[in-house]
Amino acid sequence: MQNQRVVLASRPQGAVVPSNFRLESAETPALNDGDILVRNHYLSLDPYMRGRMEDAKSYAAPQAIGDPMIGGTVGEVLESRAEGFAAGDLVVGGGGWQTHSVSPALAWMKLKPGLPLSIFLGAAGMPGITGWYGVNHICKPQPGETLVVNSATGAVGSVVGQLAKLAGARVVGVAGGATKCAIVKDEFGFDECVDYKDPDFKAKFKAAVPKGIDCVFENVGGVLFDESLKRMNAGGRIAVCGLISGYNGENIAIEQVRSILVNKLLVQGFIVSDHMKLWPQAIKELAGLVATGKIKYRETVAEGIAAAPEAFIGLLKGANVGKQLVKLI
Amino acid sequence: MQNQRVVLASRPQGAVVPSNFRLESAETPALNDGDILVRNHYLSLDPYMRGRMEDAKSYAAPQAIGDPMIGGTVGEVLESRAEGFAAGDLVVGGGGWQTHSVSPALAWMKLKPGLPLSIFLGAAGMPGITGWYGVNHICKPQPGETLVVNSATGAVGSVVGQLAKLAGARVVGVAGGATKCAIVKDEFGFDECVDYKDPDFKAKFKAAVPKGIDCVFENVGGVLFDESLKRMNAGGRIAVCGLISGYNGENIAIEQVRSILVNKLLVQGFIVSDHMKLWPQAIKELAGLVATGKIKYRETVAEGIAAAPEAFIGLLKGANVGKQLVKLI
Repeated sequence: MQNQRVVLASRPQGAVVPSNFRLESAETPALNDGDILVRNHYLSLDPYMRGRMEDAKSYAAPQAIGDPMIGGTVGEVLESRAEGFAAGDLVVGGGGWQTHSVSPALAWMKLKPGLPLSIFLGAAGMPGITGWYGVNHICKPQPGETLVVNSATGAVGSVVGQLAKLAGARVVGVAGGATKCAIVKDEFGFDECVDYKDPDFKAKFKAAVPKGIDCVFENVGGVLFDESLKRMNAGGRIAVCGLISGYNGENIAIEQVRSILVNKLLVQGFIVSDHMKLWPQAIKELAGLVATGKIKYRETVAEGIAAAPEAFIGLLKGANVGKQLVKLI
Repeated sequence: MQNQRVVLASRPQGAVVPSNFRLESAETPALNDGDILVRNHYLSLDPYMRGRMEDAKSYAAPQAIGDPMIGGTVGEVLESRAEGFAAGDLVVGGGGWQTHSVSPALAWMKLKPGLPLSIFLGAAGMPGITGWYGVNHICKPQPGETLVVNSATGAVGSVVGQLAKLAGARVVGVAGGATKCAIVKDEFGFDECVDYKDPDFKAKFKAAVPKGIDCVFENVGGVLFDESLKRMNAGGRIAVCGLISGYNGENIAIEQVRSILVNKLLVQGFIVSDHMKLWPQAIKELAGLVATGKIKYRETVAEGIAAAPEAFIGLLKGANVGKQLVKLI
């Protein structure tokens, strides 16, 4: 079977550029016992991939030069040498930036048919589970409390805000531009959205949290993190999920450290892959909320594996709205 | 009864100076029902008092100009109009910077005779309980883990390190100067002590934590906080107890925010007065450890209420070793 794949050609010097990637074609390898061959339908593009392109110490090993870029995919089993998997099964797993994946079935999870496959890469997939974990296990918003989430139209942020709304919190999103903010309020139902590109951002952000902030789901870092720290209430919780503003090596120092002490804050960094035991429960809950329309989602879909690098570069700049996918079939 | 007291005369502009205080003499007021009159034997001086001298939002209301400075004291009841208290009882409470206090008995706790009174302001008092809470409820050091504590000769830091040693951790202290570091190692039994005034501090600190850091008890902030963040292991815990390096308004920004995410750190600000329910248990445990010599302590004692302002200014500069007290009798 002919596989089209995108490999890491070189590590970025600052911003990611197209030449950091290379499109290749290769025959799929033979299956070993326990392997399945998956025809990937959708590839998920996520900010964490930027970290893997680096050599630096992070929570995961760096991506090797010349290997296919790692990434979550959903698809259909074409061939199985693994018990419990058969051709035609729908699966989600780490297929990578490629059209066909051969890998141990252990790395895949079977999906029940009936819902759009792509949601298992978004609202009911890794990003949604990330939001679910941060909201339910770190932020724990109470009715009447205020939760702030940035990257609010993103696959993680949109789920965070909607879960917090379901918990009875007042939810304020931060997003880039009036179009995104309109989606955050009108589609996702947040109480407020503040445009971080607005020259009056700081004043508008302050006005959007008149009772202070009890929970922050932090995806961005830097100035946005500091503005939230300034406005925290005593006993506040901050789930640190990402620092996308520093992914190209920019300074993400924070000035408002005193708030951690004075307001007795809990600041917790986390990565959802440390909590795999909770995934089945989270997927079930999130898929149910998506199926009943209680969680809404947006997708931005690039067409074809060759489009993945540009789509990823766009994601890092905030060009997408909602979950960034690549359609592979 | 003639009472000698030190009141807040003015708020500091930057560093605290003697003219921020004023010594006064006044007749003690008559007791209301429920009050006791206490002859204070020792006054405790603590870094948190610096915060109360400010007008800014903090975890406690600011100290009013003209009022006696707040502070913990131990002493003997001279007169009681409160049930359960009688002349001759030994008590600990918030007597303030004065020789005689008249206040509701509810604000005082009776002490069993037998141990030196001053330890209930230090190792078995508020500072010791602060260390006990941070070690047992936030840091939770495991055998073989590495814990770092700065202000290591201080009343809090010395208890932190000794409790972590009792828990089986490798303990590294940070203190100012070779004399203090010798005390930290030889008297308090820490594994290592690094002098932050040493020009090679960063390299020596790195060498002192060859297996990285699992727990930090942060009293200082700024550069010391960043050096610890650089060396954290995955799943590390940081109890933020104080940021004394910023008490005069200095910048305490931290650069190493990425470590919170990458190492999935727990960073928890706290104040021990939020956990009053745990005090009796903590005092019992700590007094037992002091009585049996398992926790050692140092005191720096100034003589007489008039010496309190200079002793407090010295404390903020690190001039004391161990618990800073003022002897009032």
